[in-house]
Amino acid sequence: MTVTDIAQRTYDHNFRLDPIVRSLLDTDFYKLLMLQMVQHIHPDVQATFSLINRTKSVRLADVIDEDELRAQLDHARGVRFTKKELIWLAGNSFYGKQQMFSPDFIAWLADFKLPAYDLRKANGQYELQFEGPWTHTMMWEIPALAIVNELKSRAAMQGKGKFALDILYARAKARLWEKVERLRQLPDLVISDFGTRRRHGFLWQRWCVEALKEGLGSRFIGTSNVLLAMDADLEAIGTNAHELPMVAAALAESDEALARAPYQVLENWQQHYNGNLLIALPDAFGTTAFLKNAPSWLAGWTGFRPDSAPPIEGGEQIIRWWQEQGVDPRQKLLIFSDGMDIDAIEETYRHFHGRVRMSFGWGTNLTNDFRGCDPDGASGLEPISLVCKVTSVNGRPAVKLSDNPAKATGDPKEIERYLRVFGSAGRTPSAVAV
Amino acid sequence: MTVTDIAQRTYDHNFRLDPIVRSLLDTDFYKLLMLQMVQHIHPDVQATFSLINRTKSVRLADVIDEDELRAQLDHARGVRFTKKELIWLAGNSFYGKQQMFSPDFIAWLADFKLPAYDLRKANGQYELQFEGPWTHTMMWEIPALAIVNELKSRAAMQGKGKFALDILYARAKARLWEKVERLRQLPDLVISDFGTRRRHGFLWQRWCVEALKEGLGSRFIGTSNVLLAMDADLEAIGTNAHELPMVAAALAESDEALARAPYQVLENWQQHYNGNLLIALPDAFGTTAFLKNAPSWLAGWTGFRPDSAPPIEGGEQIIRWWQEQGVDPRQKLLIFSDGMDIDAIEETYRHFHGRVRMSFGWGTNLTNDFRGCDPDGASGLEPISLVCKVTSVNGRPAVKLSDNPAKATGDPKEIERYLRVFGSAGRTPSAVAV
Repeated sequence: MTVTDIAQRTYDHNFRLDPIVRSLLDTDFYKLLMLQMVQHIHPDVQATFSLINRTKSVRLADVIDEDELRAQLDHARGVRFTKKELIWLAGNSFYGKQQMFSPDFIAWLADFKLPAYDLRKANGQYELQFEGPWTHTMMWEIPALAIVNELKSRAAMQGKGKFALDILYARAKARLWEKVERLRQLPDLVISDFGTRRRHGFLWQRWCVEALKEGLGSRFIGTSNVLLAMDADLEAIGTNAHELPMVAAALAESDEALARAPYQVLENWQQHYNGNLLIALPDAFGTTAFLKNAPSWLAGWTGFRPDSAPPIEGGEQIIRWWQEQGVDPRQKLLIFSDGMDIDAIEETYRHFHGRVRMSFGWGTNLTNDFRGCDPDGASGLEPISLVCKVTSVNGRPAVKLSDNPAKATGDPKEIERYLRVFGSAGRTPSAVAV
Repeated sequence: MTVTDIAQRTYDHNFRLDPIVRSLLDTDFYKLLMLQMVQHIHPDVQATFSLINRTKSVRLADVIDEDELRAQLDHARGVRFTKKELIWLAGNSFYGKQQMFSPDFIAWLADFKLPAYDLRKANGQYELQFEGPWTHTMMWEIPALAIVNELKSRAAMQGKGKFALDILYARAKARLWEKVERLRQLPDLVISDFGTRRRHGFLWQRWCVEALKEGLGSRFIGTSNVLLAMDADLEAIGTNAHELPMVAAALAESDEALARAPYQVLENWQQHYNGNLLIALPDAFGTTAFLKNAPSWLAGWTGFRPDSAPPIEGGEQIIRWWQEQGVDPRQKLLIFSDGMDIDAIEETYRHFHGRVRMSFGWGTNLTNDFRGCDPDGASGLEPISLVCKVTSVNGRPAVKLSDNPAKATGDPKEIERYLRVFGSAGRTPSAVAV
């Protein structure tokens, strides 16, 4: 016989809302690093971020209730950094460094809130946009994605029986643990969780992170999720993202300035950060173009994060560049984070082992792999390729070319101009799964 | 139908131990304030703390299993301050002050562990002693009391049915809420939780603290429990305790030095702390003697915490002293913390309202009032008067006289000497309930 806690049950049933985003630390660490720099050097830049569902076959506006979506977005707008969170940001060391965030910046965060959003439906999709100062709109990316993804999961689980749910999670757990057992075979593996934006749900991400902590021990170096890093005493992981070169490019006044923009951003970065934070993202406008004109001081950086080329080709290309610069790749780091799953991790690890330092950022396939787990055989829990990208800057269009044309974003005419400036060498189309 | 989480259930049933003390912050705030001063000015003093059960009728050694007690004490010895806890201590403000704890002290805490204990049985009681540097033995007081009290609660609940337990907690909750409703009638009430040492159990203390937070709003100013303060974003409350004058007195080399000791301690205190932390405890060797020889600078302190005289008499005596010093008591603060319950709080509040600022520290009768709640009619959950006092200092006996001879502790011959030095004016025997 089971005694139910009546007060708890009644309280639970009276929830106005089960909030998805309950903390402003429930975001990726690199957002905070970038925000500190943006707030310092670009406080007045206006940037629009837009949600883009690349999996057009899933009609999100038919799946997710608009009122629920608004309620979750509104709730996130009401969340503030708590005193305990700010104390931790100020007092914790990140990448071995004390005071990563300046007291001025922490004080600025104390008043931070997510800005307004613009939501409408079109062609079975949601058009969700965030307009305003870059310092504020950029912080919507991760919570907006987490909210839409979790609402999609909830919709897919609506009406399922208790046993169906129990089996669903049992299968997903067994699946993850099989991956853990395979990863354990790789003695020098270095891996972290990058799965906040695409997660099935917050509680499931937490389960995955705790499972990796127990299952992989010191091979699991941390999580990009700042809240989980704080609560589970893990390292917060991350450096920078495409929005930095994309905004710099959009701000460029001429084609010459456009060509210089990706390097200008890295100079700004190294004025703010050092050591293991010196990781360059080469693919915003094509890795081949980037490396061709890259300044030699970049060979002094810790490493690269190839994020859209196939991992082995992308890695080889960067290793060649290091060798041309007279640098030993074994001292350098490659971070692989583009839709990695167990097969690609194993293959990439074995390919490069001993030739370069490697680290894997494991995202969607860590925190949202329910493929084939649903006992009802439905596909509603399969992950989709949802992103939230900067689309305009001070009224000018923003563009990402990527190494994979399927991942390019921006106005077609502007894409054409960027291709003229950067060239299209080395770009290879491949299907985007997640 | 209920689905049980089988993994959770199996994990729970495999607990080697359900630890009572899981964090070194699960202690009273004043211990940390005192520790910082002791570590600074008395790093070499040796002090023995001893558990004393003043409720002789409860034979603790018959109630609590010795192996369980050892397992809990051993577990507490294995606990360290975590990184997150030290960051919070360093970064949080206490009583409105930043950096209450110096970086040196925080670094020292990082290596802190509770020292060895000595446990034996005699006459149906446990003799539990902690010998070693004062900086370490003093930190046993609260966890040792919390462990013994919670093991006593667990023993009393062993074998009870689910409904009996459900009713037990329902009654205790209803009882506390009645008190909350009465306290709400006192518009200028200022009250805090002082109930860590005597609590029924950790989870119950947390329930009580959260209930007061919801029920009393801003009238509930915080908790002495540092862990609960951190986790519930409450103020940590507390200043200093009898051990300071008791150790100073034991260290005194002559009767003259003994007479000066209680004031010497306060001088040390105000070299370390200021503002609302300037609260004097007048009763270690009798309030009448203390006030008679008190230096006039003490009238500049924020207030007093009368802790063994009956509250109204004790308060009036202190008010008279302030008036003799030409100070307006309405600017001053009295903190009442000696075995207060709802009747005494109401009476004291009404008596002094408008004449002096007041604050109540609510202990045993907040966090351990299960009297008459047991549906089996047993008395095992009634609170007992258990303390853990400093009993010797550098090999010399330590003494507390108190305003209530029933609360005196120490070697009888030494008590006689202290009575000769301080006099016995104003001391009134009264029964010690909790």
